[in-house]
Amino acid sequence: MTHKMFASDNNSGIHPAILEAIAKANSGHAPAYGSDSYTADAIRKFKEHFSEDCEVALVFNGTGANVTGLKAMVRSHQAIICTNGAHIHADEGGAAEGFIGGKLLTVPSADGKLTVDGIAEQLHHIGNQQRSQPKAVSISQCTELGTVYTIEEIKEITSFAHANGLYVHMDGARLSNAAAHLGCSFKEMTVDAGIDMLAFGGTKNGLMLGEAVVCFNKELASELTYIRKQGMQLGSKMRFIAAQFERLLTDDLWHKNASQANRMAQLLAAGLQKFPNAALTQPVESNAVFISLPKEQIGQLQKTYAFALWNAAINEIRLVTSFDTTEEDIKEFLSHVEKAYS
Amino acid sequence: MTHKMFASDNNSGIHPAILEAIAKANSGHAPAYGSDSYTADAIRKFKEHFSEDCEVALVFNGTGANVTGLKAMVRSHQAIICTNGAHIHADEGGAAEGFIGGKLLTVPSADGKLTVDGIAEQLHHIGNQQRSQPKAVSISQCTELGTVYTIEEIKEITSFAHANGLYVHMDGARLSNAAAHLGCSFKEMTVDAGIDMLAFGGTKNGLMLGEAVVCFNKELASELTYIRKQGMQLGSKMRFIAAQFERLLTDDLWHKNASQANRMAQLLAAGLQKFPNAALTQPVESNAVFISLPKEQIGQLQKTYAFALWNAAINEIRLVTSFDTTEEDIKEFLSHVEKAYS
Amino acid sequence: MTHKMFASDNNSGIHPAILEAIAKANSGHAPAYGSDSYTADAIRKFKEHFSEDCEVALVFNGTGANVTGLKAMVRSHQAIICTNGAHIHADEGGAAEGFIGGKLLTVPSADGKLTVDGIAEQLHHIGNQQRSQPKAVSISQCTELGTVYTIEEIKEITSFAHANGLYVHMDGARLSNAAAHLGCSFKEMTVDAGIDMLAFGGTKNGLMLGEAVVCFNKELASELTYIRKQGMQLGSKMRFIAAQFERLLTDDLWHKNASQANRMAQLLAAGLQKFPNAALTQPVESNAVFISLPKEQIGQLQKTYAFALWNAAINEIRLVTSFDTTEEDIKEFLSHVEKAYS
Amino acid sequence: MTHKMFASDNNSGIHPAILEAIAKANSGHAPAYGSDSYTADAIRKFKEHFSEDCEVALVFNGTGANVTGLKAMVRSHQAIICTNGAHIHADEGGAAEGFIGGKLLTVPSADGKLTVDGIAEQLHHIGNQQRSQPKAVSISQCTELGTVYTIEEIKEITSFAHANGLYVHMDGARLSNAAAHLGCSFKEMTVDAGIDMLAFGGTKNGLMLGEAVVCFNKELASELTYIRKQGMQLGSKMRFIAAQFERLLTDDLWHKNASQANRMAQLLAAGLQKFPNAALTQPVESNAVFISLPKEQIGQLQKTYAFALWNAAINEIRLVTSFDTTEEDIKEFLSHVEKAYS
Repeated sequence: MTHKMFASDNNSGIHPAILEAIAKANSGHAPAYGSDSYTADAIRKFKEHFSEDCEVALVFNGTGANVTGLKAMVRSHQAIICTNGAHIHADEGGAAEGFIGGKLLTVPSADGKLTVDGIAEQLHHIGNQQRSQPKAVSISQCTELGTVYTIEEIKEITSFAHANGLYVHMDGARLSNAAAHLGCSFKEMTVDAGIDMLAFGGTKNGLMLGEAVVCFNKELASELTYIRKQGMQLGSKMRFIAAQFERLLTDDLWHKNASQANRMAQLLAAGLQKFPNAALTQPVESNAVFISLPKEQIGQLQKTYAFALWNAAINEIRLVTSFDTTEEDIKEFLSHVEKAYS
Repeated sequence: MTHKMFASDNNSGIHPAILEAIAKANSGHAPAYGSDSYTADAIRKFKEHFSEDCEVALVFNGTGANVTGLKAMVRSHQAIICTNGAHIHADEGGAAEGFIGGKLLTVPSADGKLTVDGIAEQLHHIGNQQRSQPKAVSISQCTELGTVYTIEEIKEITSFAHANGLYVHMDGARLSNAAAHLGCSFKEMTVDAGIDMLAFGGTKNGLMLGEAVVCFNKELASELTYIRKQGMQLGSKMRFIAAQFERLLTDDLWHKNASQANRMAQLLAAGLQKFPNAALTQPVESNAVFISLPKEQIGQLQKTYAFALWNAAINEIRLVTSFDTTEEDIKEFLSHVEKAYS
Repeated sequence: MTHKMFASDNNSGIHPAILEAIAKANSGHAPAYGSDSYTADAIRKFKEHFSEDCEVALVFNGTGANVTGLKAMVRSHQAIICTNGAHIHADEGGAAEGFIGGKLLTVPSADGKLTVDGIAEQLHHIGNQQRSQPKAVSISQCTELGTVYTIEEIKEITSFAHANGLYVHMDGARLSNAAAHLGCSFKEMTVDAGIDMLAFGGTKNGLMLGEAVVCFNKELASELTYIRKQGMQLGSKMRFIAAQFERLLTDDLWHKNASQANRMAQLLAAGLQKFPNAALTQPVESNAVFISLPKEQIGQLQKTYAFALWNAAINEIRLVTSFDTTEEDIKEFLSHVEKAYS
Repeated sequence: MTHKMFASDNNSGIHPAILEAIAKANSGHAPAYGSDSYTADAIRKFKEHFSEDCEVALVFNGTGANVTGLKAMVRSHQAIICTNGAHIHADEGGAAEGFIGGKLLTVPSADGKLTVDGIAEQLHHIGNQQRSQPKAVSISQCTELGTVYTIEEIKEITSFAHANGLYVHMDGARLSNAAAHLGCSFKEMTVDAGIDMLAFGGTKNGLMLGEAVVCFNKELASELTYIRKQGMQLGSKMRFIAAQFERLLTDDLWHKNASQANRMAQLLAAGLQKFPNAALTQPVESNAVFISLPKEQIGQLQKTYAFALWNAAINEIRLVTSFDTTEEDIKEFLSHVEKAYS
């Protein structure tokens, strides 16, 4: 076995309890496409954590969760406002445009967060048939830069958006890390904060694979299953995705996993900052460390570790910890940094 | 645990050896998105079974595999010829139209098979800008009616198609059942028979989930990974899909699973035909039994078993066996039929 | 100048009064994109002919009118039921699939008409996420085979459709010919008969170019202008399309033009039927004649005239008359038929 | 008749010679969909002006021309690089995303021009399946800010683009104005400068309606007609669009019209700059004047004239002249400015 990786939290494997849940669900036959008891159980868990009134559609991956939810919110002549670093814009291979046929209107952001001012900037030519009409806002919690919106910041956005006839979507691929950081429930950060549609991440927090579209706005719920199917996100043996979620949402496993990853990121950041010319480029609020290091040391480290050179212009790298990253792993990484500096 | 089901082969679970392979792959970290050694191993297996020259893209589900492959073959102003019962037309929620933006031209078929005559029927107005131009043919092996193309039938189609400038796609969601029935290799039935693009099924033959797009035509291979990503079919922890395929394609597991399902279908058909007014509506060539039974007996059986009432007009039902269907399961089902008749 | 053609009614030119209306509108400047007084005047005319409550969007061509209207009626995971000979299916280059991303469910039809039975045939698997859900019906008036629905037939379809949650679209590329044939108003045949959305044809009835989407269902009206723009159907100097419609809908010009074409078709059919082995294959109810002639005579005629060999298997040809077809033109054509027979 | 407008050059009407050409083409019958002699004549003119080797597809409007050409250049998983003010991004209602299903990658631009540096900025993550791969660059000549690329600037872009595997598209809605400004031929500015695909504008330079897709790259030409049809841009009575282009490209009519508009813009700019606190915000290189005026004066003017308040933050307005704008019109406008100031 090689050392742990810091390229992304999807380098990690399956949490043992999740794998056990899969094995346990592997008993006899079950109806397909979500008509099984495992899916019912998982949905019940979601309702407990979020709201009795939500609609849940389990899907395969994060892109699928985002685009399925967004497609329920906008028609093709409408637009989605997001940051220029949003995963839906920068990292999903054009899935949103391809499946929705609509436009993403991007706003620059230094810390990964969208602001009311940024949204307002795009609210021009309203009612003008020549322009794709903004109809939704999408924010990522945690952001792609590892930062976390406070509940107040989310509420500010949803209030402004709703007042302007916009739905609010949340890309929650790492929602657990955000909740662990804020010390709040999923509910407080989503439905209570005015979110209409959520992509809830499982894969990056210990699942083999599995994400969930969680819809809090009844207007948007009725077509979700059809959109999921057309979007090629309907699993036949759905019990095996459901069983993972059921387990993740039981006994605070989601919280343990996310907290561990977050803590390891803090440890890593603290260790790295001791080195000369090492400077955090973003606050460490979840499981990612954005830091600039001298070019030479980055080069040395890349011989042993794979990680993203985020912004070559400022020698900024991204390191991501996982639910299974240990203090030993951090020490080992830091020892390699030490070597790189010596 | 309840009894085995016959509604579809995706009611079955995960084959124990496949689950074990997942567990074994769950060791430490691995690069995401297919850059891992498990994926390399799986692809090597595909090349052994099919051709050194094929391109393989692992995806989540059958619809994803079909549409990803088809999108590489046609542009949106072109058309795909298939039967009116083809899964891509009848059961995939409009995914082909939604993601490709092109047209399916359907041909009626009594036994699920497309014929050269059927294809020829659609080859009119060639070069006429007013009509979506046929550019691909899609056949299902096994067909949606459980029948199996002979290798000669496939070659007849591919020869005719290629002579007319059409690519040939094969929906092989149950390719293993077909190969087991024909007693041939995958290679003989696909690349050697002129198939350009294959959707290879894993889920229905013992996987938790996983399908593969296998491309035999170099012209069509270069954009597959981008199409997969835009189609929301790129898994991050891909090793866990790859490990399943690696196992399925090792030690003839694919063949054992498919043969077992096929054999159970034969047993079931034989048992059912002994009952009064029970008549097969399709030959049993794979793991599905299409049979008409008296309406009353169907009603009785539906109280205990879920299965598709395929064609109510002729009291035709569809029963599907799986890799894990046992002789006991068949006996139990037949005993319920017995009761329904008494 | 060469002789008149019978290949299609779009071989004809611009009616002099229409050209005059264009010239008259060419006075000074006018606001673009439909904010001009000519467009207001045209819309007023539409309201007079159809209903005060309709919404009108002028577009460039028939495909644009059909697809714009249909896109307002269905989402991409839904389906449109039409005949297999419907223009939207057979002759629009896949525009519906390309722009809507949804499915057309086709029903065979011998006379070009859709029936309640034909629609009912497609109303299965309702609520099943695996299938594109039927949400609209599209009928053509006149049909692509020159036949005309009676008002009763239309009402039967709209009643059945509405009772089943389906909207009804009418492709009225030749609506004027149908109205002239039935001796009824546009209103009786559309909004009063339950039509939700109409593509109203101008080009084939004397316009240079121009079609109109006319929406009678308030639920479907709000997004029309945005759909038109995204569908590349918004003309900037719209006054010149509007002025044509304003004129067409004034002083019964639409009726005069359509009646002339219809009458010429009758004359042509009567003349042709006198020849040996000439047999109408469809009743002549508008401006098209579908007739089978001996193969040799068809070959002879094709040396002088271009027209569609509609169904080679039965030596069926299609001849279309226009607003500017004269008795002389018919005589000339018949004289060529005479020669072909001699 | 009211005064001339300065909101856009599409407020103008039809040049008398163009209207005459339409009338002249209105003689008898002609084959539809571009098989007529008028279309052949128009295409011959295009070949004379551009290149014997180009492919020409006549369409209805500018959005149609842009998107048809772009769709031939990219597949849906690919991206088009343009400025954030590009018409295809800001003013076409999401047509590019809707019809192509791909992504626009935008680059900020102060003067409306794209630069090699701006393009280079977007050339990251090449070969990474997670990102829409840049495959085309689109520039507007004239730009949306009235500025004009020099031939050298165009060549710099096309050289860089081709060296990086990118096609180059030119939105030439106002190409004639650019050619008149530069004093060069269409050929020098397009095919000779390395442009692969052009949208050539007619509507804004005296046509009733009509634009042309002109393809200089043989790789991209073969599917154009199908793309045009699926994009709802195929006119049936095409002779009436063709005849307009044939006339525009004869006897330098295009040049006379464009020069007149350009000259009037210079006159207008010169007149406006004499007023206090009036400052050009862009150089006047074509038929548009971007200028900032005191807020109060803008308000006064808007009572009489409609024009775009381009950037309210800096009191910047846009005024556009047309082929039919006269010195009298400019004097009249300036007299209203005078009043606004007094």
